[in-house]
Amino acid sequence: MSDFHVYDTTLRDGAQQEGLNLSVADKLAIARQLDALGVGYIEGGWPGANPKDTEFFQRARTELKLEHAQLAAFGATRRAGLKAADDPLIAALRDSGAGVVTLVAKSHDRHVELALRTTLEENLAMIRDTVTHLRAEGQRVFLDAEHFFDGYRANRAYALEVLRTATEAGADVVALCDTNGGMLPTWVADVVHDVVEATGAKVGIHCHNDTGCAVANSLAAVDAGATHVQGTVNGYGERTGNADLIAVVANLELKLGRSVLPDGSLREATRTAHAIADVTNVPPASRQPYVGSSAFAHKAGLHASAIKVDPDLYQHMDPLGVGNDMRLLVSDMAGRASIELKGRELGFELDAALARRVTDRVKELESRGYTFEAADASFELLLLEEVEGARPSYFDVESWRVISDHAGLTEATVKIVADGVRFVVTDEGNGPVNALDRALRAAIEQAFPEVQQFELTDYKVRLFDEGHGTNAKTRVLIETSDSDGSWVTVGVGENVIEASWEALVDGLTFGLRRHR
Amino acid sequence: MSDFHVYDTTLRDGAQQEGLNLSVADKLAIARQLDALGVGYIEGGWPGANPKDTEFFQRARTELKLEHAQLAAFGATRRAGLKAADDPLIAALRDSGAGVVTLVAKSHDRHVELALRTTLEENLAMIRDTVTHLRAEGQRVFLDAEHFFDGYRANRAYALEVLRTATEAGADVVALCDTNGGMLPTWVADVVHDVVEATGAKVGIHCHNDTGCAVANSLAAVDAGATHVQGTVNGYGERTGNADLIAVVANLELKLGRSVLPDGSLREATRTAHAIADVTNVPPASRQPYVGSSAFAHKAGLHASAIKVDPDLYQHMDPLGVGNDMRLLVSDMAGRASIELKGRELGFELDAALARRVTDRVKELESRGYTFEAADASFELLLLEEVEGARPSYFDVESWRVISDHAGLTEATVKIVADGVRFVVTDEGNGPVNALDRALRAAIEQAFPEVQQFELTDYKVRLFDEGHGTNAKTRVLIETSDSDGSWVTVGVGENVIEASWEALVDGLTFGLRRHR
Repeated sequence: MSDFHVYDTTLRDGAQQEGLNLSVADKLAIARQLDALGVGYIEGGWPGANPKDTEFFQRARTELKLEHAQLAAFGATRRAGLKAADDPLIAALRDSGAGVVTLVAKSHDRHVELALRTTLEENLAMIRDTVTHLRAEGQRVFLDAEHFFDGYRANRAYALEVLRTATEAGADVVALCDTNGGMLPTWVADVVHDVVEATGAKVGIHCHNDTGCAVANSLAAVDAGATHVQGTVNGYGERTGNADLIAVVANLELKLGRSVLPDGSLREATRTAHAIADVTNVPPASRQPYVGSSAFAHKAGLHASAIKVDPDLYQHMDPLGVGNDMRLLVSDMAGRASIELKGRELGFELDAALARRVTDRVKELESRGYTFEAADASFELLLLEEVEGARPSYFDVESWRVISDHAGLTEATVKIVADGVRFVVTDEGNGPVNALDRALRAAIEQAFPEVQQFELTDYKVRLFDEGHGTNAKTRVLIETSDSDGSWVTVGVGENVIEASWEALVDGLTFGLRRHR
Repeated sequence: MSDFHVYDTTLRDGAQQEGLNLSVADKLAIARQLDALGVGYIEGGWPGANPKDTEFFQRARTELKLEHAQLAAFGATRRAGLKAADDPLIAALRDSGAGVVTLVAKSHDRHVELALRTTLEENLAMIRDTVTHLRAEGQRVFLDAEHFFDGYRANRAYALEVLRTATEAGADVVALCDTNGGMLPTWVADVVHDVVEATGAKVGIHCHNDTGCAVANSLAAVDAGATHVQGTVNGYGERTGNADLIAVVANLELKLGRSVLPDGSLREATRTAHAIADVTNVPPASRQPYVGSSAFAHKAGLHASAIKVDPDLYQHMDPLGVGNDMRLLVSDMAGRASIELKGRELGFELDAALARRVTDRVKELESRGYTFEAADASFELLLLEEVEGARPSYFDVESWRVISDHAGLTEATVKIVADGVRFVVTDEGNGPVNALDRALRAAIEQAFPEVQQFELTDYKVRLFDEGHGTNAKTRVLIETSDSDGSWVTVGVGENVIEASWEALVDGLTFGLRRHR
C-alpha cells in the first residue's frame, strides 16, 4: 500500500456516463461503499460548477465518516487574467472542505489555444498561481493533465513544462490523462517512462476505454513508474467509459503482487460493484472482469467434468479473492459468514443452523430478483422472522385497489385491520404509489400515530429480464425516513404497483418496530 | 493483409456465452455478416460433437456463398489408443467439407494427465497422427494449444514440444490459447517472443477477457510476432468473454497501421456488430469500444462548443472509420451548437432562429425533467414539430383508464380515434403500463397494421426531486423496436402511468412516421 494512490472518480468522471444521473444522496451512498472498499481518494465532483456537487461537499462534512479515503474536489485552474484568489470557482474549491483539490489543466498546446483561447505562457501562469494559492490555503493539490498523451505527441516540451510548473508550485501528483482514450499500452509505457525520468514527479494515470485497453493502459503506466491510478467502479464514464478501477486493482494485487488496498478489502469487490450498481440503477454487466455474475461461470461441456477434479486447472484465480463465486448465481450476501456478520451488526448472534436458514432464504429470494444489499430493513425483517418465529406485523391487509385515468384522477382505496379495528380509507395521489402510500398511512395512523413522522424519501424502480419490455419483472426500493434516520425496503413483482405495495408495507412495519 | 489471419470464433467459442443460444439459421446469418466484414476464417462449430454444428456445415455447403472467408471446423485430436483414421470424431471433421480444421490439443502437462488421463508421449502422438491424417485427406490444419500460457509456465519444454510436433506434422498455425484468461500483456509478449524464436512457426493468439485485457493481450501477441488473431464479435464468450475481434482489428488497422481486412471493410464494423447482436438477441453494450452507441457520444458542456471548432481535438479517431458516428447528447449541459449539430445529424439544416427555438424548448423541457440524451426519437418529434409546424400525429386519444388491485387484476381501457374511426379496447396486463401498452396497440393496429411489428423492448423509470418520495416526478424511457432498429421516447409526470402513457404514444407515433 504505502505510497500508492487508488483514486476513484466514479462520482465525477463516471457520472458523465450517458443516462447516469446521481442525486446527492446517491453520491453519499456511493462514497460510503468506496470508503468501505478501501480506496485512498474519492473525487466527489466539481463544487462551484455544479450546485449538486457543492451540496455534496457540504453534506459530506457532517454525513460522511470516512475511514480510509480522503475526499478530493475537482476543478479547473483559474480563469485567464484573474487572480486565483479572486476567482469564484477557485473559492468554491477552497471552501469545499476537501483535503485534496484535483485541478484539471490543459497540457496540449492546441487545446490551450483553441479551447482556452489563451497563450501557452498564460496557461502555465494559471497552473502556477492556482496550485500556489490552494497550497497556501492548506489544501493538497493533484494535477490532472488533460489530453496529455496527445499533447505530448504534438509538443513534448510544452506538455512536460506543464507538469514541471505544477510540481514546482507544490502539486503532489501529476496525473496523465488519456482524455480521448486513443492510447495503447506500449505507447502509454513509453510516455510514462519518459515523464518519470524527465520530471521526477509522482506520476498518475487516467485512462478511458476507447481502444478497449483502459485496464491494460493503466497497468502499463504502473509498470513504467506511475504510483497513482484513477478509475471508476464498473468502468462508468463518458463514451466507452473510464478504466474499471476494480479490475485494475485486482490485477495489481492478484496478478502483480502489489498491495494497494487495505488487507482483505479486495474480497469486498464484487459486493461493492453490485451495491454501487444498485445506487446508479445501471444493470451490472454479467461479463465484467472479476465481479461479473458470469466471470467465473463455466458452461463448456469440455470442462465440466474436469473442473471437479481440480478447479484451479480451469480458473485463473480463486473467485473468493474478489468476493465472487464459481457458481452461476452471484448473491451479494451469499456467504454464510457475511450473513452471520450482518446479523451480529444488527445485534443477533446467529447459530450455525439459523445462519444457514437465513442464507438459504436470502439466496432463494435473490434468485427471484430481491436484493438485500441496499434493502437493510427488509433484511432485518427477514432476520427477525427467522429469529422470533414470525415476521413483525402491526396490521393486516384486507384489500387495496388503485384507479388512474387520462384526466389525472388517481385514487387508492385501502382496507386494513390494526389493533382489532377495521379501517377503510380512500385517498388521492399524483400517482398510483403515492395514492396507495397516502391511503395506507392515513389508515394506519389512526391506530399508530407515530406513522405521521414517517416520510417516503426515495423510490427506485429497476426492471430486469430486460428484452421483455413491460412484461419484465420489477424491483422497487423504497426509502422511508423519520427524524432519527432512514431505512430501505424492497419489493419485487411483475406489477410495479404490487412490488411497491410490498415495499411500502415493509417500510411502515420496520418503522413501527423501531418505535416500539 | 497478405498473410495475416483474422480468425472469428463467434459461432463456436462465442456461443459458449451464458444465455446465448444459436440456431443453425442464426449461425448461417452470422457467418454471412462475418464474411461481408471480410474476416479470413469463420470457425463454424464442432461437427460430430454437436448435431447442430454438423448440420451447420452440411447446410453451409449449399447455403453459404463466402466471398472472403474460409470455414474452419473445430475439433479435438484423436482419442488415446485409436488411429486417427478410425476415430469417428475425426471422420466428422473430415466430412465437414471445411477447408480448415482447427484442432484443439492439450499443451499443459497437468491437463494431459488429469483431464485426458493419458501420457505426455501419447498426447504428442495424438497430435502427430491427427494432423498428418487430415493433411493427407486434403485439409489445412490449425492447432489450438489449449491452456498454453499456463502450460508454458509449468513445463516450457513440453509446451513447445506440442507446438513443434504439430508444425512438423503439417499444421499451418499454432494458436496459443489463454484458456483461463489470466494473462497480462507483458507476459503474453514475452511468451510469444520466445515461441516465435524457439519454433519458427506461424503463431496465433486466442485470448479471454478475465483480467480485462483480452484486446491488449491480443495486440501484445501481434507486436511480439503473432500473425493470426482469434476473437469473437461483441466479445461474446464464456465467463468474461473472448477478445472482441472488432476492437482488435480496429486497433491493428487504425492505430497500428496494419491492413488486416479488405480495404474499406472496417467501415462496416458498427453495422456488423449490431446486426449480429440482433441475431444473438443480446442487447448491444452502449459503451463497447468503437461500435457502441455511446462510443463517440459527447456530453460534457466543457466540450460541446469546442467540438464544433475542431472535432479531432475531442475524439481519438473519425468515427466513420468504423461506421459509427459522433452522436451528440442533447442535454442541459450543452448549448445551441450541439443542437445544430444534432439537427444536421438527423438531416435538418437549422437556421439560427429555429436552432434557438429548439434549444429553448429543450432547455425548458429538461428543466421539467425530460431528457433527450437517450430519447432520440422524442427529440426528433420535437424537431419535426418545430420544422413542420405540427407534431406528427396518427391518432387522437379520447381517454384511458387503468385499474389495479391486491388480487392481481390489472385492466386498461383505451378510447382512441384513428383514421376517422373510434376504437374502444380493454385489455389486461401484468402491470398497469403493460395493460395500457397492450390496449393501445390493439386499438391502433386496427387502423395501422404495421404496429404489430413494433415491440416494447425496454422500459426504464427514474424518480427525481428526491426527498419527495412518491410525490417526486417520474421520468420514463421506453425503447420500441422493429426489424430495422430501435428508438427511445421519454415521458415525464408526477404519475408514473401518465409518464409512461406519454412515452408509449410517442414511441408508436415515431414508429408510424418511420414507416410512412
